[in-house]
Amino acid sequence: MALVVIRQDGKIDFWKEALMAESPELQVYGYLEDHPKDNIEMALVWKHPQGSLANYPNLKLIASNGAGVDFIFKDPDVPEGIPITRIVDTKLAEDMSEHVLAVILSHLKNLDTYKLQQTQGIWKPRNYYRISDFTVGIMGLGELGRVLAKDLVRFGFKVQGWANSHKSIENVKTFAGDKELSGFLSSSEILVCLLPLTNKTTGILNISLFEQLPKNAFVINVARGGHLVDDDLISMLDSGHLSGAGLDVYHQEPLPATHPFWQHEKIHMTPHYASVSDPKFVVPQILENYRRMKAGKPLINKISRDKGY
Amino acid sequence: MALVVIRQDGKIDFWKEALMAESPELQVYGYLEDHPKDNIEMALVWKHPQGSLANYPNLKLIASNGAGVDFIFKDPDVPEGIPITRIVDTKLAEDMSEHVLAVILSHLKNLDTYKLQQTQGIWKPRNYYRISDFTVGIMGLGELGRVLAKDLVRFGFKVQGWANSHKSIENVKTFAGDKELSGFLSSSEILVCLLPLTNKTTGILNISLFEQLPKNAFVINVARGGHLVDDDLISMLDSGHLSGAGLDVYHQEPLPATHPFWQHEKIHMTPHYASVSDPKFVVPQILENYRRMKAGKPLINKISRDKGY
Repeated sequence: MALVVIRQDGKIDFWKEALMAESPELQVYGYLEDHPKDNIEMALVWKHPQGSLANYPNLKLIASNGAGVDFIFKDPDVPEGIPITRIVDTKLAEDMSEHVLAVILSHLKNLDTYKLQQTQGIWKPRNYYRISDFTVGIMGLGELGRVLAKDLVRFGFKVQGWANSHKSIENVKTFAGDKELSGFLSSSEILVCLLPLTNKTTGILNISLFEQLPKNAFVINVARGGHLVDDDLISMLDSGHLSGAGLDVYHQEPLPATHPFWQHEKIHMTPHYASVSDPKFVVPQILENYRRMKAGKPLINKISRDKGY
Repeated sequence: MALVVIRQDGKIDFWKEALMAESPELQVYGYLEDHPKDNIEMALVWKHPQGSLANYPNLKLIASNGAGVDFIFKDPDVPEGIPITRIVDTKLAEDMSEHVLAVILSHLKNLDTYKLQQTQGIWKPRNYYRISDFTVGIMGLGELGRVLAKDLVRFGFKVQGWANSHKSIENVKTFAGDKELSGFLSSSEILVCLLPLTNKTTGILNISLFEQLPKNAFVINVARGGHLVDDDLISMLDSGHLSGAGLDVYHQEPLPATHPFWQHEKIHMTPHYASVSDPKFVVPQILENYRRMKAGKPLINKISRDKGY
């Protein structure tokens, strides 16, 4: 019995080798090579071509190769009734947290502005802000959001969070559900989106949400491009209501050359690299679920098809 | 009796007003207006024109308006035997610490590189580093250096420091004097200069020091432009021995338009604005020393003419 790796970013061999190095007896195939489709019981997927999972009649487990699973739900031809798992990588959460902290501090201390001024030969001091001046609001208090909340508290920020239900995180006020969203937004001077992408959260970062933030708020999206309505962000930056945005994720990646984000001075882009999976942490989780699937034991990091995460 | 404010950066009225708001009975003059020179007992100075302090025959106190006093010692016509004080502003130390953290994180997460790539329309992920990967070496463990050391430890960095004598700072290994400098340098992957500028430290950031740093070290100078030999930095960046530099201070400020730092992709410039004095904290110290001077009491934050700080 065997495992197939399905992804389109040129990293199939990378993951095949990482898996086989840890478990030489495991049969691992890339989806483009010749392979016995009847034998495949597990698919390790990352943004697979839609429909490709329907080729495996004996599939028993679909494992996302990352923290997100939204791309699996977007595929109308994903076979039903097969459990789906994702990666929970504590390093991913730490890396994400450091990235968000870097983006926030760069904003507070005007480093992005100074970098632009430097290329233009402009010497112009700008008033800076202090960590203690700001309340950071985190949308999404899953693994990533919780680690970020704790780190930001440790660094001296005031921190609040919003999720489906109230959470208990020391020194973090949490808001829950639609009813408490506007209270959360009205006091979030820096807004960080770390929500899962579901039907309910697609397009949630839109003009009516931005209008509820305090004037000069700064928005960071490190979740998924689908959370953001791009035109709404641009119009709120241009009107001066928002002071800037740090984006790591986009509707289409790489971002097309004609997209207005590239040339917008208030948008600070990173190329979807806030945190990347380290095979050292990821491979053991994949192999553990392979063994559990074979033994009929409960899977780790299984997601709920109903919730979508 | 009266106080004169001497500075050339257009901020005389700002400081006059801040002083008079706190102490309406105090006579405060700007050095360019008509004023009774015999009555001046205290001079509040920041990069004053050389020789200007010699105009006051009854001067009893020279107060730097900032943390640095090097500009006072550079003036050959400063009257001798008059005590010199400086500002100790704990907010300055906190601001400096946040600025240095922002510069370090921006380097670790490639934010400066991404900002340049964005202006050029380039989507190119770069491997990032983690806080836990790095040892930060701090040169100078005075007020600013100590606060930075403690903050960086709290943020998860490995931290070491170098000063004239060994210091006791929790979780920070300290090195002392010329003998221990090379041991300190060889393990400092990020080097932060927070030394006072004295005869001994002028030009200390030179090629022979840089060569003792590990390959790919990153250098941050937030002390004074005079610490750095500009050409040595450029040659070590161009040879690839150093990975980059974050500079806030320069030999001449604003930096002349023809200076090669402006166009160097590995140099990240800020316009001497890592931390700026807040009159809220500064004015009470100035007034306290005015009263002490009048009462013949020991001054606060008096500096040693012998040490130069």
